Amino acid sequence: MSHYQAPLRDIHFNLFDVWQLDHYWQQQSTLAEIIESETAKAILDEAAKICEQQIAPLSQVADAVGAQLREGKVTLPEHYYTAYKSLSEGGWTGLSGDPEFGGMGMPKALSMMVDEMLCSADIAFSLYPGLTAGAGVALLQHADDSMKSLYLPKLYSGEWSGTMCLTESHAGSDLGIMRTAAKPLPDGSYSITGSKIFITAGEHDLTSNIIHLVLAKLPDAPAGSKGISLFLVPKFLVNSQGDITERNTLSVGSIEHKMGINGSATCVLNFDGAQGFLIGQPHRGLACMFTMMNYERLSMGSQGLGAAERAYQNALIYAKERLQGRIAEKDTNKAEAIIGHPDVRRMLLNIKVMNEAGRTFATWVASLLDRAKYDNCELSNHRANLLTPITKAFMTDRGLDACITAQQVFGGHGYVKEWGMEQLVRDVRIAQIYEGTNGIQAADFMLRKVVSDKGVVLEALLVDILDEITTQPNTTTPQLQQAITVLRQHLHALLQRDLAVISAGACDFLDATAYVLYGYMWYRNIKALATGTQDNDFIQGKEQSAAWYCHKVLPKIYGILASIEGDTSSLFKLQDDIF
Amino acid sequence: MSHYQAPLRDIHFNLFDVWQLDHYWQQQSTLAEIIESETAKAILDEAAKICEQQIAPLSQVADAVGAQLREGKVTLPEHYYTAYKSLSEGGWTGLSGDPEFGGMGMPKALSMMVDEMLCSADIAFSLYPGLTAGAGVALLQHADDSMKSLYLPKLYSGEWSGTMCLTESHAGSDLGIMRTAAKPLPDGSYSITGSKIFITAGEHDLTSNIIHLVLAKLPDAPAGSKGISLFLVPKFLVNSQGDITERNTLSVGSIEHKMGINGSATCVLNFDGAQGFLIGQPHRGLACMFTMMNYERLSMGSQGLGAAERAYQNALIYAKERLQGRIAEKDTNKAEAIIGHPDVRRMLLNIKVMNEAGRTFATWVASLLDRAKYDNCELSNHRANLLTPITKAFMTDRGLDACITAQQVFGGHGYVKEWGMEQLVRDVRIAQIYEGTNGIQAADFMLRKVVSDKGVVLEALLVDILDEITTQPNTTTPQLQQAITVLRQHLHALLQRDLAVISAGACDFLDATAYVLYGYMWYRNIKALATGTQDNDFIQGKEQSAAWYCHKVLPKIYGILASIEGDTSSLFKLQDDIF
Repeated sequence: MSHYQAPLRDIHFNLFDVWQLDHYWQQQSTLAEIIESETAKAILDEAAKICEQQIAPLSQVADAVGAQLREGKVTLPEHYYTAYKSLSEGGWTGLSGDPEFGGMGMPKALSMMVDEMLCSADIAFSLYPGLTAGAGVALLQHADDSMKSLYLPKLYSGEWSGTMCLTESHAGSDLGIMRTAAKPLPDGSYSITGSKIFITAGEHDLTSNIIHLVLAKLPDAPAGSKGISLFLVPKFLVNSQGDITERNTLSVGSIEHKMGINGSATCVLNFDGAQGFLIGQPHRGLACMFTMMNYERLSMGSQGLGAAERAYQNALIYAKERLQGRIAEKDTNKAEAIIGHPDVRRMLLNIKVMNEAGRTFATWVASLLDRAKYDNCELSNHRANLLTPITKAFMTDRGLDACITAQQVFGGHGYVKEWGMEQLVRDVRIAQIYEGTNGIQAADFMLRKVVSDKGVVLEALLVDILDEITTQPNTTTPQLQQAITVLRQHLHALLQRDLAVISAGACDFLDATAYVLYGYMWYRNIKALATGTQDNDFIQGKEQSAAWYCHKVLPKIYGILASIEGDTSSLFKLQDDIF
Repeated sequence: MSHYQAPLRDIHFNLFDVWQLDHYWQQQSTLAEIIESETAKAILDEAAKICEQQIAPLSQVADAVGAQLREGKVTLPEHYYTAYKSLSEGGWTGLSGDPEFGGMGMPKALSMMVDEMLCSADIAFSLYPGLTAGAGVALLQHADDSMKSLYLPKLYSGEWSGTMCLTESHAGSDLGIMRTAAKPLPDGSYSITGSKIFITAGEHDLTSNIIHLVLAKLPDAPAGSKGISLFLVPKFLVNSQGDITERNTLSVGSIEHKMGINGSATCVLNFDGAQGFLIGQPHRGLACMFTMMNYERLSMGSQGLGAAERAYQNALIYAKERLQGRIAEKDTNKAEAIIGHPDVRRMLLNIKVMNEAGRTFATWVASLLDRAKYDNCELSNHRANLLTPITKAFMTDRGLDACITAQQVFGGHGYVKEWGMEQLVRDVRIAQIYEGTNGIQAADFMLRKVVSDKGVVLEALLVDILDEITTQPNTTTPQLQQAITVLRQHLHALLQRDLAVISAGACDFLDATAYVLYGYMWYRNIKALATGTQDNDFIQGKEQSAAWYCHKVLPKIYGILASIEGDTSSLFKLQDDIF
């Protein structure tokens, strides 16, 4: 059975030593009233308990049973109901919700750590509270007060859940060509008609109502993505007191049979003149939806990290227990634990250094979002925007790598279902695809976040990091300094190229930037050891990991950058029919 | 439904233009009587037909149905029976078998191409004829004449099938600690007792008998891997006329539930005093088994390539049909095929250049084996030995990459079962694990094939290639020459390091070497265009692909080599309990 223990120590280290967020929380007027380090630790402890005891032990059962559609109703693995109830009752579903509407108002930096644990426990399960929280964020930002009062408290309490309905069978990444239509009704509401696919948590009986956020086109809509509006379409209609009245005219057509996340009901939803309510301005729905989308993109990073953390823990246990071969042992009838083999050690350490840097990175991005939100800090906002596609793409790509590597540590046992390692590979694979494929993330990063401002935000970030690591150098400084210098040279050169070449190099440049930023995460990990509160083993672990990252992982960028620099013209010379 | 069309044109190009094996076959006395280019083409055409029409269209059905164990009997997907019959009747199961015992005697270079097609069609299915052929190779080389006469004709005819029984639950990569015991019986045969796991095709009713090649220990066996003997243990015992007599005392305990290759019955086999027959010398079983193992390791390369080829074909079709977004189009209600997007193009081209280089590489290694076998060519033998772990590890690692990338081209549709892309990922994943994990391949490559002869064979190969590409330069020469030069510097430096450091860098050095050799494959592809028999489109395709490989893929080695060069000490300083 697949093991999981929440990495609370490293989470505390990141929150309180690396980023010293307890200090920030104390200084920030809104947050000071809500949270300090002991509250945060208590919240994390409780979340860890639910994840370790109620969700993780049954994730393989959830995979085997899956979501089941029968006669228009979707049922979920049995323990999902009790685990979701525990989450709701403990207030977890409203963890970062607005206190005005019954949320707990916790900072993103904290909820992102809870996200990681939930994803380690079971990515499929995590989607139900995850999408609900995302829907809450979109409503809070774009709905009017009466809608907020009506829907937010029940989303925060976990009584109801949420979805995002974007994709149609012919319109995935290209939402502008969608066909779902919204017709104005005399009472100011709308009649929504169309079919949406790949709707996560689109139908289930975990909650008494489901609040769908649906993109559709009004009759007078301009062409393309500027003609899309956002509607709230509840599964059950709700009166002004918030009571459920009649069933809305929408139904589940089918659920997908997928590679993984089998516990997640991925639905075709048919809206057949369903009653909906406009959120925000007409034709501005995509902007509203992106509030939710960006939130979800960060969660994708947690999926990558969460799966990778669980994969690592299990591979480490296996590598210490599995006896094969001899390194020091001379008796050929005896065997040693495979963790002694340099190649197995290498695989484990490669996962470890990416996971720990990933956790520091996730905490960083979340804390920038908090500063943007609570302090209206424009710089933090720009940096969070820059880093969001990296969080989504790089953390999920490396999450898959980690799960594959951990599976490899198990040899043949990694390929059979029993050990749970192959499920992690299957489950985490989706995170590279949904909420905008990683190719789209790279395009977003390069074109919208870097090229559009001539690289100013990225360049300023790199210069700030360079300044920090050279004025307060530690063991990571030499390799990191060199890497940043080379990355900046490539950034300047790339900005001179035409857009097609930049687009073709977008994934690689995102990767190179991310490896450098992960180097900075290791700089920060080492810097944080100076507080002197950690024991020797912890310090040793961090120092050797940082050294491994800087000497063995970071140099990958020299290959990536050499490739970016290489002549791209063959990509366009080769005609479609000769591929 | 997942499409497949055998890439016959590129196969012909590799056999006859790149490596000009038709010339070699004509000059080689044994082969000249058996094969020339038209026979080879006819054989490939027929193999393509079976793969395209009988196996590939039902591979998703085979995945869904799987092998089923009921009351000690294993049944397979229905079409496996008819497809296997077609293979047997066409003589495919004896394609490279010795003509003296009824085989067709075809060279490895040809059977390797058929292997690729079978693996594209369905890796799980390919294992049944694949292991049978492997068992035939081991028997031919190590069994005595009476055993050969008794068993080989029926293995070649496909009437019986074969397995290799190595792994025990506590003894996977470390065969020396196995416990299965062989007790001599008065009649010169042996009584075999023990339990083997992960036995591919261990039980099924595709053939009337199954010939298990089993590793076990004799009572007087020396400790460790030098005390292992090889036994032939048939499912049904056979009299001296080759007729089946009674059921041997072995049975299937269970079959594994796996990530993929569901059509392959992966069995626990319990030998309960089963009658077995010694093959080769006592205690020399591991060497005998390695004959089969090396054969299988090449087949693993075909699995990587086969899956990658099918993944590419489907991704290409999808990329040409799927309309999303606009590059040249201005009407925002219209969308263009996604192959126009630079990042999608990049993904496709990355797969294409690796697949085509892989096919050239596979043909090369197979032709070296042919020269070793038919001409007793020692140099070819050394080079084939050097390249075998690369074929196994690099071709399967890149095969998984390709399947994941192709799945990514499909976006969300790649994650649902319907399109068959996720199955390719699940199926090909095993190839990195079985027949010796890729980490073990890297250790074999570095320690046994490079370090043990102080790098002489590899160095000589690189020098020969350098000589060829500089005296007859083409467009690939500049990048390739530089890459070889840098690789050699690193090789010389690495040979000075201690074994633990070399072991820790083995996977990376195998990769770097393989990328360079794939560069040489592209050199050879371009060189072969000079024959002037190809049309313009084909030439364009090869030239742009070679350029892409040299400018965009090959530079990866500079990152890999920089990592190898980096300080490895943290790997060993970090204690096991601090991981």
